[in-house]
Amino acid sequence: MTNHPSQSSVTTNAALPVPSGRVEGGQLDVWTLFNNLTAQHKAINLGQGFMGFPAPQFVKDAGSAAVQDETCTQYAPPRGKPELRNELAKNYSAFFGRTINPDTEIVVAAGGNEGLLCVFAAFMNPGDEAILMEPAFDQYTMNLKMISGVPKFVPLKTRPGVDPAQEVLTADDWVLDIAALRAQITPRTKVLVVNTPHNPIGKVFSTAELTEIAAVAQEFNLVVLSDEVYDRLTYEGKPHVSIATLPGMWERTVVSCSAGKAFGVTGWRIGWMIGAEALITPCLRAHTRYVFTVNSPMQVGIAHAFQQAAQNDFFARQRGEYLARRDRFMRALDRTGLAYTIPHGSYFVLVNTGRIRIPVGYTFPPEIADRDPCYKMGYFFTKEIGVTGIPTTEFYSETNSPLGQDYIRFAFCKPDDVLDAAAERLLRVKQFM
Amino acid sequence: MTNHPSQSSVTTNAALPVPSGRVEGGQLDVWTLFNNLTAQHKAINLGQGFMGFPAPQFVKDAGSAAVQDETCTQYAPPRGKPELRNELAKNYSAFFGRTINPDTEIVVAAGGNEGLLCVFAAFMNPGDEAILMEPAFDQYTMNLKMISGVPKFVPLKTRPGVDPAQEVLTADDWVLDIAALRAQITPRTKVLVVNTPHNPIGKVFSTAELTEIAAVAQEFNLVVLSDEVYDRLTYEGKPHVSIATLPGMWERTVVSCSAGKAFGVTGWRIGWMIGAEALITPCLRAHTRYVFTVNSPMQVGIAHAFQQAAQNDFFARQRGEYLARRDRFMRALDRTGLAYTIPHGSYFVLVNTGRIRIPVGYTFPPEIADRDPCYKMGYFFTKEIGVTGIPTTEFYSETNSPLGQDYIRFAFCKPDDVLDAAAERLLRVKQFM
Repeated sequence: MTNHPSQSSVTTNAALPVPSGRVEGGQLDVWTLFNNLTAQHKAINLGQGFMGFPAPQFVKDAGSAAVQDETCTQYAPPRGKPELRNELAKNYSAFFGRTINPDTEIVVAAGGNEGLLCVFAAFMNPGDEAILMEPAFDQYTMNLKMISGVPKFVPLKTRPGVDPAQEVLTADDWVLDIAALRAQITPRTKVLVVNTPHNPIGKVFSTAELTEIAAVAQEFNLVVLSDEVYDRLTYEGKPHVSIATLPGMWERTVVSCSAGKAFGVTGWRIGWMIGAEALITPCLRAHTRYVFTVNSPMQVGIAHAFQQAAQNDFFARQRGEYLARRDRFMRALDRTGLAYTIPHGSYFVLVNTGRIRIPVGYTFPPEIADRDPCYKMGYFFTKEIGVTGIPTTEFYSETNSPLGQDYIRFAFCKPDDVLDAAAERLLRVKQFM
Repeated sequence: MTNHPSQSSVTTNAALPVPSGRVEGGQLDVWTLFNNLTAQHKAINLGQGFMGFPAPQFVKDAGSAAVQDETCTQYAPPRGKPELRNELAKNYSAFFGRTINPDTEIVVAAGGNEGLLCVFAAFMNPGDEAILMEPAFDQYTMNLKMISGVPKFVPLKTRPGVDPAQEVLTADDWVLDIAALRAQITPRTKVLVVNTPHNPIGKVFSTAELTEIAAVAQEFNLVVLSDEVYDRLTYEGKPHVSIATLPGMWERTVVSCSAGKAFGVTGWRIGWMIGAEALITPCLRAHTRYVFTVNSPMQVGIAHAFQQAAQNDFFARQRGEYLARRDRFMRALDRTGLAYTIPHGSYFVLVNTGRIRIPVGYTFPPEIADRDPCYKMGYFFTKEIGVTGIPTTEFYSETNSPLGQDYIRFAFCKPDDVLDAAAERLLRVKQFM
């Protein structure tokens, strides 16, 4: 590169380029908005689901060694480094009850999120529809927008007869109405998204529930995109079951997983898709055309981390640590009197804010004033309680957003001292109940 | 994750999911095809443009230290780690002749390629058109396919009066016919791709050429996507000029760059987009919706690599090394009598194969037999000469592919012993001329 001082840049009167419809949407995203508010009000950040504790040393060591490994400095194959695909095949074959072929049934993605995107892109033409169960990870809708896909929504609802503002529920109390799911299907429906363990509810779908969903997928010839990024974080002996293991479902399910979640390194951006060759091949094409290939050293780092995890019992130990964090946070909530949903998986707790009364005349800054009441409650938590969560309406379409209005999502993937400090601050909520 | 042995997977008679039009295309990609052939025939691989020598130790050290840095284990901001954006702003401000704002005018991408994709996505609605100058990096067309965009092609052609089969040309002998460019523009044209230094020709566009192109972009209100990934690899004192530095062009140009090319680590998948805030903001939206964020440790590794490069004169030294490799490879070609184009930038040489006669009755394997003559020549080189290049028709649309029929692209980003061994083998070509 040669320095080339600019000639004075004359602003012409010509029209300037206009962004595409794909990237429209003027409002600041919830993550940036609440990360900014958290900093401004010195709140404790239980919003975004990143780990607040150090990554395991053996994982970092595996990663830094891979950076020094000369076989990791150049392009990985688009499908992924063989070292990682072989470890994944070893790790997942027992789980799926079949021998996973590392050369045909796995693609390494640039994070679980890119894996999701590839599945939508691989099976949906512009205008085709995907069914999302709300509340739903907000990136699904964004991914769909990028492929000119249309999201259709069906809500998970609390069982009739329970009062979520007064009672502590469990994630099992949130259920899917299969008739409502069927009602959303049209001839353009191509993909059905299942997310278990579920973000933000923490629901771990049972085999019975998945069997009902599988029947619908088969009846309407849908691809199931099974987002299982929290597969290693389940509690109370709830078994994580993949819908891909049900009869007739391997042929129509792509499972998306995440090293960020499995090993506590969300910044490494390594994920993978697993499925039948006929499904994975089109996903690989999309992946190759989107990002070509994924960073090599982090792939090999994760491969070696899997090898060591098999020897040092990492996943069981990690699960125990998360369970302790979950329970610590739930005890904190119990002391406030707030109702919440006990999660059986993931690292989130939905807290019901229906009993909190924001003082009359309370004022909101401009970036919050035009948002819905759930965002206002989120702001109130950040500023007055000093603990940041994410307004759950972020995970709903506009039509169904009243269903999320009374919930704030808190992430408990944080160290004990942070959770304890948050517990202290959360007691402030009592004066508003 | 709990092991859950599959119930016996019954294959139903139901229809199975059908891939989208976006991922159609049955033929094996050129990279996989020729990497496989290279291995099969023990050829020397001068095909894919990955470095055949070790990455600089200071770069690897910066990367492995970043993996150990706890601030690099979790999500980077979607825009990129501030450490890297600040270094990029420092590095590029003098080049662009303006103070680049690291918080508004830069987005870090998951490789230069994802940066290209984001620009297309940010400014093109489905059915909108982008102009590509052929031969063109094949990923542009693939990226466009993913956003339902339409590529329109204008060829760079050798000057009238030169005979590319007999004469050694320079990259300056390949020129753009501005009238032909204008003829491709329609009301749906939104983006014009400029690639300088150019892959595969090695052409470094002059200020005069870029000025002509800039006038067209302004007249038709186009976004210029300026792919400058080889910005630090120019030879013979040819100055790399960015079209973004021309009057009135900052407002309509997004520049895409690559750490893989700049530091010899194509496997790290770090790139960046630079441009005016009004252009970068929609690119950031697309990027956030595609991959959310880029791997943190490699970003910080590159930030520290830039700091050290400023002190150890890395880029000048690297340029000298590449120049020596280029000249070494050109001397090898001179000994064969083959004509070629002297590149002024990048690490590719286009070799003209018009004088080579493949023996009558020569047979090709099935994966080559139904490809065009350029692929057949590529195969002949791999198998009979023992040196792999890439058939240049890969970089052309079907209509213009006759223009590329007589060229094979060789990459010289390889160590001296590999280049010398290739030189020996290339002499075998004489018996077929």
